[in-house]
Amino acid sequence: MCGPVVMDAVRTEVTRRSFLRLATASAAAVGGAQLLGATQALAAPVTPHFRRVQDLTHTLKPTFPSFSGQPVFKSDVAVTVKKDGFYGLNISYFEHIGTHMDAPAHFGDGAPTVERLGPGVLIAPVVVIHVHERAAQDPDTRVTADDIRAWERRYGRLPRGAAVFMHSGWESRVGSSQAFRNPDASGTMHFPGFHPNAVEFLLAERDAVGIGVDTLSLDFGASKDFKTHVTWLPAGRWGLENLANLARIPPSGAWVFVGAPKVAGGSGGPCRVFAMW
Amino acid sequence: MCGPVVMDAVRTEVTRRSFLRLATASAAAVGGAQLLGATQALAAPVTPHFRRVQDLTHTLKPTFPSFSGQPVFKSDVAVTVKKDGFYGLNISYFEHIGTHMDAPAHFGDGAPTVERLGPGVLIAPVVVIHVHERAAQDPDTRVTADDIRAWERRYGRLPRGAAVFMHSGWESRVGSSQAFRNPDASGTMHFPGFHPNAVEFLLAERDAVGIGVDTLSLDFGASKDFKTHVTWLPAGRWGLENLANLARIPPSGAWVFVGAPKVAGGSGGPCRVFAMW
Repeated sequence: MCGPVVMDAVRTEVTRRSFLRLATASAAAVGGAQLLGATQALAAPVTPHFRRVQDLTHTLKPTFPSFSGQPVFKSDVAVTVKKDGFYGLNISYFEHIGTHMDAPAHFGDGAPTVERLGPGVLIAPVVVIHVHERAAQDPDTRVTADDIRAWERRYGRLPRGAAVFMHSGWESRVGSSQAFRNPDASGTMHFPGFHPNAVEFLLAERDAVGIGVDTLSLDFGASKDFKTHVTWLPAGRWGLENLANLARIPPSGAWVFVGAPKVAGGSGGPCRVFAMW
Repeated sequence: MCGPVVMDAVRTEVTRRSFLRLATASAAAVGGAQLLGATQALAAPVTPHFRRVQDLTHTLKPTFPSFSGQPVFKSDVAVTVKKDGFYGLNISYFEHIGTHMDAPAHFGDGAPTVERLGPGVLIAPVVVIHVHERAAQDPDTRVTADDIRAWERRYGRLPRGAAVFMHSGWESRVGSSQAFRNPDASGTMHFPGFHPNAVEFLLAERDAVGIGVDTLSLDFGASKDFKTHVTWLPAGRWGLENLANLARIPPSGAWVFVGAPKVAGGSGGPCRVFAMW
């Protein structure tokens, strides 16, 4: 009695390109679009013969550094096998903690919330820009449009619908909120991020779907205007913060699978992220 | 200063088979094992040339039906673009809500908690057993060992390290807690699940890593002893509950990517789940 309803459902095909068109359209137009629930055709077949996989996710716990420096994640044992026959936690958090997504709506009023992001944009070819040598000397360093152009001179033009991740080596500090946030005497934080000109380049010249960083913010820590967030997210793109293990995946040739939460109205939230190549 | 530490990290290879050995070992032995953080070799290369992808995840919201019938998920707007410059929610929940994972520790004292499950067991070939025609007549129907054998006669032996999902068509009821839980006058629920003899067969005769259902529980709703949970999870295997769109993926030949949360000490929790083929 239930099966046929599902079996007969129209199989709408939504490609990555059409998603981007939808995501950047007006809020009113986006409101009517059905981005999820339908089987999607991938814009291009995913690279064949994956042989290796890497988890890009930090373990989330109450001591994980937050952007504000305040605790925003809590977990409490609700039931135990010994007492109740089964074990489970009660969890509570502000969405922007741990290895997590910034959905377009995080900075874009009316832009897609996280449940609207389908696999067409959450599964993507991924490239890594290494700035760890610069970051070791200058915690305010940023990935620029020139860095992406330099990557392209070495590896070729960015794939269509790519994700571009920054490896700054910052994750070695993740065990200490003080070292990871790295505030100066005035409280201004210092850690690497994306320069606004990098995301302006990606929006104007390439069709990337997402960016990611191994630090607390898409913008560098000293940013006062969050210009990278403000430029990138409302344009219907996503960001990932606090990524792990970016030195363990190739700079070119991997695919990323972003297990973003599917919370109604969510601005992002903790993700499980894998890379395969 | 940070990069080399990561670059020089030992690349331990943990295959799916070795995970299963670890997961089924004693709690003491498991405690010392490092299953995560290392690049993993897949037990077998993932099927080449994915051309289609399907989201198997329901959108999570406060009205999503819970096993107990009580509300266990809450989301509140914490900040808004208009007032604060950015938007975000505060979220709180008991882990077993929405499309979610049961980690081995959910019923196995000392068995792996969810952050211990790596991509070697969260990325798997997936098969679908269709019982929607039976379920339409009998809400107490269960996937049995015979159903799996019948699937094998048609499609061949289960792949190594497979996930086995039940499609009962129950998701058409998900909009109503009453219809989805389907309690009788005495409060006993009636919906399909896995028969204990199915998971006994998978443990003894095959090396499957996970099972999944489109209902509220791995056990059928009328279960008093949770024997499927008790047999399957403490053996180091995972379960997924409240899956969506299982009629939209092929019975054989797809791979599943389970974006399980990486919460320290977690018993499972809301997941993003994709199938590709």
